Amino acid sequence: MSTRSESSLGTRPLDTGDPSPYDERRNDGNADGQLERQRSKASYSYEDARGWRRWRVLRPGRGMYHDIKRRLPYYPSDITDAWSYRTIASTIRMYFPFKAMVPQASAHADRLHSLLPAIAYTLDMYRRTGEFFGVNEALFSSALAAIVFSLIGAQPLTIVGVTGLISLFNFTTYDIISIYDVSIYPQFMAWTGIWAAIFHWLVAVLNACDYMRYVTDFSSESFGMYVGIIYIIKGLEELINEFHEGGSAAGYLACVIAILYFATVYALEKLGQGKMWKAGVRGILADYAYVFCTLFWVGFSHIPGRLEETHVARVPVAPAFSPTQPRSWLIDFWNLDVKWVFVAMPFGFLVMLLFYYDHNVSSITAQARQFPLKKPGGFHWDFFLLGCTTFVAGILGLPMPNGLVPQAPVHTDSLTVYKTELRIISTAEGEGTEIRRPIVKAEAVVEQRVTHFLMGLALIGTMTGPLLVVLHTMPAAVFAGVFFVVGWGSIESNGILQKFILLQAENRFIQRDEPLLRVRRRKILLYISIQMVTVTTCVAISHTIAAIGFPVIIMLLMPMRILVLPRWFRLEELQVLDDFTATNKMVLASLGGKPALPEHSKEEDWGLERQRSEKRHGVPRQRAGSLHR
Amino acid sequence: MSTRSESSLGTRPLDTGDPSPYDERRNDGNADGQLERQRSKASYSYEDARGWRRWRVLRPGRGMYHDIKRRLPYYPSDITDAWSYRTIASTIRMYFPFKAMVPQASAHADRLHSLLPAIAYTLDMYRRTGEFFGVNEALFSSALAAIVFSLIGAQPLTIVGVTGLISLFNFTTYDIISIYDVSIYPQFMAWTGIWAAIFHWLVAVLNACDYMRYVTDFSSESFGMYVGIIYIIKGLEELINEFHEGGSAAGYLACVIAILYFATVYALEKLGQGKMWKAGVRGILADYAYVFCTLFWVGFSHIPGRLEETHVARVPVAPAFSPTQPRSWLIDFWNLDVKWVFVAMPFGFLVMLLFYYDHNVSSITAQARQFPLKKPGGFHWDFFLLGCTTFVAGILGLPMPNGLVPQAPVHTDSLTVYKTELRIISTAEGEGTEIRRPIVKAEAVVEQRVTHFLMGLALIGTMTGPLLVVLHTMPAAVFAGVFFVVGWGSIESNGILQKFILLQAENRFIQRDEPLLRVRRRKILLYISIQMVTVTTCVAISHTIAAIGFPVIIMLLMPMRILVLPRWFRLEELQVLDDFTATNKMVLASLGGKPALPEHSKEEDWGLERQRSEKRHGVPRQRAGSLHR
Repeated sequence: MSTRSESSLGTRPLDTGDPSPYDERRNDGNADGQLERQRSKASYSYEDARGWRRWRVLRPGRGMYHDIKRRLPYYPSDITDAWSYRTIASTIRMYFPFKAMVPQASAHADRLHSLLPAIAYTLDMYRRTGEFFGVNEALFSSALAAIVFSLIGAQPLTIVGVTGLISLFNFTTYDIISIYDVSIYPQFMAWTGIWAAIFHWLVAVLNACDYMRYVTDFSSESFGMYVGIIYIIKGLEELINEFHEGGSAAGYLACVIAILYFATVYALEKLGQGKMWKAGVRGILADYAYVFCTLFWVGFSHIPGRLEETHVARVPVAPAFSPTQPRSWLIDFWNLDVKWVFVAMPFGFLVMLLFYYDHNVSSITAQARQFPLKKPGGFHWDFFLLGCTTFVAGILGLPMPNGLVPQAPVHTDSLTVYKTELRIISTAEGEGTEIRRPIVKAEAVVEQRVTHFLMGLALIGTMTGPLLVVLHTMPAAVFAGVFFVVGWGSIESNGILQKFILLQAENRFIQRDEPLLRVRRRKILLYISIQMVTVTTCVAISHTIAAIGFPVIIMLLMPMRILVLPRWFRLEELQVLDDFTATNKMVLASLGGKPALPEHSKEEDWGLERQRSEKRHGVPRQRAGSLHR
Repeated sequence: MSTRSESSLGTRPLDTGDPSPYDERRNDGNADGQLERQRSKASYSYEDARGWRRWRVLRPGRGMYHDIKRRLPYYPSDITDAWSYRTIASTIRMYFPFKAMVPQASAHADRLHSLLPAIAYTLDMYRRTGEFFGVNEALFSSALAAIVFSLIGAQPLTIVGVTGLISLFNFTTYDIISIYDVSIYPQFMAWTGIWAAIFHWLVAVLNACDYMRYVTDFSSESFGMYVGIIYIIKGLEELINEFHEGGSAAGYLACVIAILYFATVYALEKLGQGKMWKAGVRGILADYAYVFCTLFWVGFSHIPGRLEETHVARVPVAPAFSPTQPRSWLIDFWNLDVKWVFVAMPFGFLVMLLFYYDHNVSSITAQARQFPLKKPGGFHWDFFLLGCTTFVAGILGLPMPNGLVPQAPVHTDSLTVYKTELRIISTAEGEGTEIRRPIVKAEAVVEQRVTHFLMGLALIGTMTGPLLVVLHTMPAAVFAGVFFVVGWGSIESNGILQKFILLQAENRFIQRDEPLLRVRRRKILLYISIQMVTVTTCVAISHTIAAIGFPVIIMLLMPMRILVLPRWFRLEELQVLDDFTATNKMVLASLGGKPALPEHSKEEDWGLERQRSEKRHGVPRQRAGSLHR
C-alpha cells in the first residue's frame, strides 16, 4: 500500500533541526516527474495520484500508516524534550499551590483546566441520567483517555477528556430511552459506544479525516460560539438546581459565589494580559488564575458561621474506584434486545459525527497557525485510538472522552514559550515622542507527552478515597463559575462578536487599514447572520429531545462554506472574513496536504484581519475559554 | 468698605461676550499705579493692598460683597440661559424614563444622582441614630438646600444635599451622646447646628474661604480616596445589615442585586465611554446608566415568586411631610442644659470644618479647570448661605446639607456640551496608515439655576404620600450598589491609584514622554504614601468614636502641602505630581486671586501629567463617582 521512502526511519530529523523530511521536499516546488512519484509515495498526499488511487477510501489505512511513520521518529524526543526548564518549572510551580487541594494534581495548570470542567459537566449529567454517570465515571474516562493518548497518541498536545457536549448527548439519550424502558439505559449506551467505535475505525481506516483540512473559522467560530452559549446556560442551570436542592439561601449564595468566581478569574486574567509587573509575574497570573480563585472560593464557602451553615450543594462522590451505581465496571451489554442493539446504531453514528468534528477541531486548534510547532501530528491514527477509547468507555459505562475545546489549545499555549517584545512606533506629529506597544511573540513550543501523561496519573490519583473527600468539599457553585468563565471566554474572543462590535463602531474611529472596511457592511452582516442562525438553531434544539442531532447541523457548516458561500461572497470578501484554522504544514501533512478550495489561493492571502492584528499586537495568548483567537 | 468700581453694575457683560469685567482688567498685565489701585478696589484681591488692608480678617464682609457684585449681573441670564436646547432636551429626555418611578423627578439625570445617595446615607443614619433621622428628614434637608442655593446661591452649579460624611458625623455624635443621655440627642444636634451656623457666618464674613484656593490635587485626591473607601464600606455595611434584618436568603439576594447593579451600571458607563454607536447614543448610556439600572433592578426585586418572597429590606418611609419620629418639625432646642449647649460648640466647630472643606471642594470641583465656565461663582456668599441652611437644618432636626462630592462636578459635567473629535496620528512606520483616536472637547457649559431649582421641587414632590410609597418599593440592596458604583468610581479614577498603577507598570511599556518618569520612583512612592497614610488614618478613626475628628485630619493636608512638601520635593517634582484643582480665573476671582504658593510659578507649569493626558485624549468626562479626573 505504501513503499518505503528514501528518508529512512532511522534518521533523526531533530538533529538537523529540520522539522520533517516531508516538509523539505514539499518546498522543492518544481521537481521532475520521478521525484514527484517518489514524493507521492513517501508523503501522505493525493495530489499527484491518478486513477483509482485518487480515491482515498480505496486506499484504506494509508493515512494511519503515514501518521505512524511520520510521528514515530519523534517519540524519544517527546520524553527527552519534556525535561526542558519550562516543563520542570511549570511542574514545580504548579505542584505547591495546588497540592493543598489535590496533591498529585500537579503536572500542569491544565490539570485543573481538565479536571474542573470534566467534573462540572458531570454534575449535570449525574442528575439527568438517573445518577448513572457520576464523578468516578468522568474521572476514569478522562484518565483512560489521557493515558492512552499520551502513551500512544500521535499528537499528545491534544488534551482528551469528557466534554459538555457528550454530557448533553448522554442525558438526551436518557430522556429518549426513559420514554420506553429506562432500565436498558446502561446497555443501550454500551452499544452506542460500540457502534460509535466501529464508525470511528471506519473513518480512520478510510482516511476520511482528511476533510477536516477544510475547517475554516467560518465553522469553528460558530462551534465556539455554540459551545460558549451552552456553557453559560449550563452554568445557569447549575445555579437554578441549587435553588431546588438547597432552597433560597443556598441558591442565592451559590449565585454570589459563581458571580464573584467569574469576576475574580476574569480580573486576574486581564491583569495577566496587561502591562503591569514583569512578564513572569503576569505569566503566573494568567496561568494560575483558575487555581488561585478556586482555592479561594472553595475556602470561602467553608468559612464557619453563616456561610457554612447555608449548605450549598457540593460535588457528589462515590466510594474510591467504584462506579457511582452499585454495579461492576463492565456493563452486561450482551443482555440487550437485538432490536435495541440496532436502534443504538444511529446514536453511535451521531457520536462519531460529533467526535469527528469536535475531536479533530480541538486537535487542529491545539496545532493552530499561531503555534510554532516543529513536530507533526496524526489525525487518522488519533481518530482510530479515539475509537478504541470510545469502545472501552462504552462497555465500562463511562462518558465517552474526546478532544477538548478549548482546553486542548490552552494546553499548547501553556507549553509555548512567549516573549513580549516592545514595539516603538514613531508618530509624525503632536503626540510627544512615540507610542510604545507590547508585541507578543511565540518562540517555541515544548512538544512532549509527559504533561498529558501526568494528567492521566493525577486523574487516577483523584479517584482515591482521600482525594474524593477533598473533591467533595468543592461547592457546585464554583463549577457554575467555571462555566461562566469558559463560556464567556469563548464568546468574548469569538470572531462573530468581534465582527459585530466592529459593525457597531462609530465609523470615523475605525482605523483606515482595517481590512473589514473593504467588505460592505451588509455582507459582513450576512456572514455573521449565517453563523448566528446556525448557532441559535443548535442552541434551540439542545433543549429539546432533538439535541442529539446537533452534530449534524454543526457539520453542515463545512459543505456550506465550500459550496454555498463562494456564490454569495466574492473571493476577496471571504479572504477578509474567513481564514483557515490550521495552516501549519506539519498539520496539513496528516490531512493530505493543503485544502483545495474552489478558489485555490495562497494561504498568505487569507485571514487579512488576523494578519493585521498579529502585525500590531503579536499572537494572542489563549484565554481559558478562547477558541484560537 | 468698598468703593464703586468703574464698571457699572448696569453693563451687561453677556452682550459683549466678555466673561467678566474683573477678568479683562486682570489680563492687562503691566498697567500703571492708578489703574492698579482702582483694580484693587474694583476686584476682590489683596495683592496690591498695604498696611492693615492686607489682613483679610480685618475687612469683614468684603468677600461676600464682591461675590454679590460679581455675580448679580448674571442672574437674569441664569434663567434665560436655561432655555437652551440642551437643558430642554435634557429635561424631556429625563422626564419619561424616570417618570415611571418618581414623576416629578425629571429635571435632570442628576436628580437621581442627588436622590439616590441621599437616601442611601439615610438608611444607615436612620438605623444608627435611634431612627431620629429618616428619609423625610433627608428629603426635606436636600430640598431646602436645593431651593435656597438655586434661588439665591452665587454658584448654582454646586449641588447641595445630604452627604455620607454628615451621616457619619450624626451617628458618631449619637454614639457619644448615648453614653450620657440619649434623650437630649435632638436638642444637642440642634445646638450643634446653631454653633456650626455661627462659625459658618464668621468664616464667610472674615473672608476665610480664600484659603481654599490652596487646594491642590494632593489633598483633594486624598479626600476623594477617603470618600470612595467610606462609600464602599457603607455599601458592605448595608449588605451586612440585610443579613441581620432579613436572614440568610434576603442577605444573599441583596448581595446578588448589589453586585449585579454595580456590574450593569459600570458596564453601561464603560460602553458610553467607548467608540460604539454615535456620540448621542453613547451620551444617553453615560447619562442614564443609573436610571436604566435602578429601574431594572428595582423591578427585578419585585418579580413574583422566589425573588419577591425573599423579602429584601426596602426603604423605610414615614407619612408624607412628617418627621420620622412623632415630633413637630421644630426642635425644642431651648430645653437643653446650658452645660450641653457649650458641649455642642466644638461639635459645631467640627461641622464647620467639615463643610469648609467638603462644601468648598465640591464647589471648586464643580467649577474645576476642565469646564469652560464663563460666569463667576462666589465662595464667601455661598458659605454664608450654607450657614443659614445649617441653622435651619439644626433647629428642624434635619441632617445638615452641604456641597456634594462627586455629584456637584457630575452636575456641571452633565450641563457641559461635549464634542468628540477625531484625531488622526500619522505613524512613521510599519503600522499601516495611521492611528485614529477620539478626543473629547468641552465646548461650553449651560450655566443656569433652573436644574438645581427643579431638583428641589422634585425632592419636595418626593415627600408626598404617593411618591413615598414608590420610594418604599426600592430595595436597600440597590443603594448598596449605588455605594459601590460611586465609591469605586472615586477610587478608580483617583490620582493616587493612577500613580500606583504606573509604578507597577513594566518600565519599557511606559511612553517616554510620561511626565512621571521625570520623578524618581521613590519620590512618587513617598508622595502617594503620605496621601494613603492620611486616608487610612481617616478610615480607621471613622470606625471609632473619634470619627467626628476626621475633618481635622483632612484639613491638615492643606498646610502640609504648603509648608512641608516643598522641603521634601523639588519644585519640578511637585509640578509633575500635583496640580491646582481650580485654575479658572472666574473661580479664583472669588478666592482673592491666584494662590501665592511659596514656589510662585505659572499655572501652565503645573499638572504636567494632566496636560499630557488632555492633549492626547481630551478632557475626561466625569464618571458618576470620579473626582475631577
